[in-house]
Amino acid sequence: MSDLRIPPRSAAGFELKAGQLLTVIDPEGIQVADLLAYSLADPREVISNGRTFDYEETIRLTTGNRLWSNRSNVLLTIEADTVGCHDFLLTPCSEATFRHFYPEHPVHRGCFGNLAEALAPWGIEPDAIPVAFNCFMNVPVDSDGKVSVIPPVSKAGDSLSLRAHQDLIIGITACSAYASNGGSFKPIDYRIDS
Amino acid sequence: MSDLRIPPRSAAGFELKAGQLLTVIDPEGIQVADLLAYSLADPREVISNGRTFDYEETIRLTTGNRLWSNRSNVLLTIEADTVGCHDFLLTPCSEATFRHFYPEHPVHRGCFGNLAEALAPWGIEPDAIPVAFNCFMNVPVDSDGKVSVIPPVSKAGDSLSLRAHQDLIIGITACSAYASNGGSFKPIDYRIDS
Repeated sequence: MSDLRIPPRSAAGFELKAGQLLTVIDPEGIQVADLLAYSLADPREVISNGRTFDYEETIRLTTGNRLWSNRSNVLLTIEADTVGCHDFLLTPCSEATFRHFYPEHPVHRGCFGNLAEALAPWGIEPDAIPVAFNCFMNVPVDSDGKVSVIPPVSKAGDSLSLRAHQDLIIGITACSAYASNGGSFKPIDYRIDS
Repeated sequence: MSDLRIPPRSAAGFELKAGQLLTVIDPEGIQVADLLAYSLADPREVISNGRTFDYEETIRLTTGNRLWSNRSNVLLTIEADTVGCHDFLLTPCSEATFRHFYPEHPVHRGCFGNLAEALAPWGIEPDAIPVAFNCFMNVPVDSDGKVSVIPPVSKAGDSLSLRAHQDLIIGITACSAYASNGGSFKPIDYRIDS
């Protein structure tokens, strides 16, 4: 299939079958894509940053690492990664985070609101949106534990490829926040290969 | 009230009213207590490590920091902390984590199973158990992002006090895992003050 485009400040929802490879592409560079994965068989099973940190024993996930669910199953394995800098600590931007971090800007529903709409056809409610795997997001943690959000190191055409271990519902965004992408809003592309 | 005791490898569930102060005590030292907080008005609202890292801008939480919910509300504020070393990255130990990390030991339902039983009276299902705030748990993150679990630095009588911002359902454990408490299983005490 040819690449599909997620327009700036929006999201897509789709099914990814067991064995298929999802490639997330940053077509212009310096952009973030929040990624969620739920079990199609029972969407109460969802990716979990804590279970992933438990089993992978790192907060810095790249090629070879797996994304685990709240039920301790592997949902996705990272098979290729041209960037090597992603985040699994922070939640999707939302109306509340816009009010908190950007009081000088108009409020936007953010990745959280975009994901809620994209996932609604599968009966997934907003409260069931956990921390997303934030592709290309650059969140350094200093030696005292302080976190900051700085522009991604991704360049135009960089990508991340993930293999599904079971049939999944995927939600993915082109991020809406100012800090995560250096103040610009850009599209995200994706492709599904068998 | 006098201190209440959570026996080794078990959990307690109770309601904490808005304005009350919960003090979690490590009576013998070098023990971990996994803490969960849900809104009593609607238990779909629950503490969120990601929202907390977002708003507090640190993964190292101590006196003055707040624990936020998935709906971007403050549930608890840390008012006192004699230890200054806690974890909000890792999920409660469970049957699956025992099989993964301790294949030489008998499987135990762990803090996850204990929390599920303790929270069932409020209709909270196992899938609704997120990353807990792990009082006294010592989880260093190195400069490459690698996480490890080492014995707590807490000494006998050390404590952590948290003030409720709304009526809450609390689940709290005396941890069941080997790595988190240096291989020993001990009780946890707690006290509620107005």
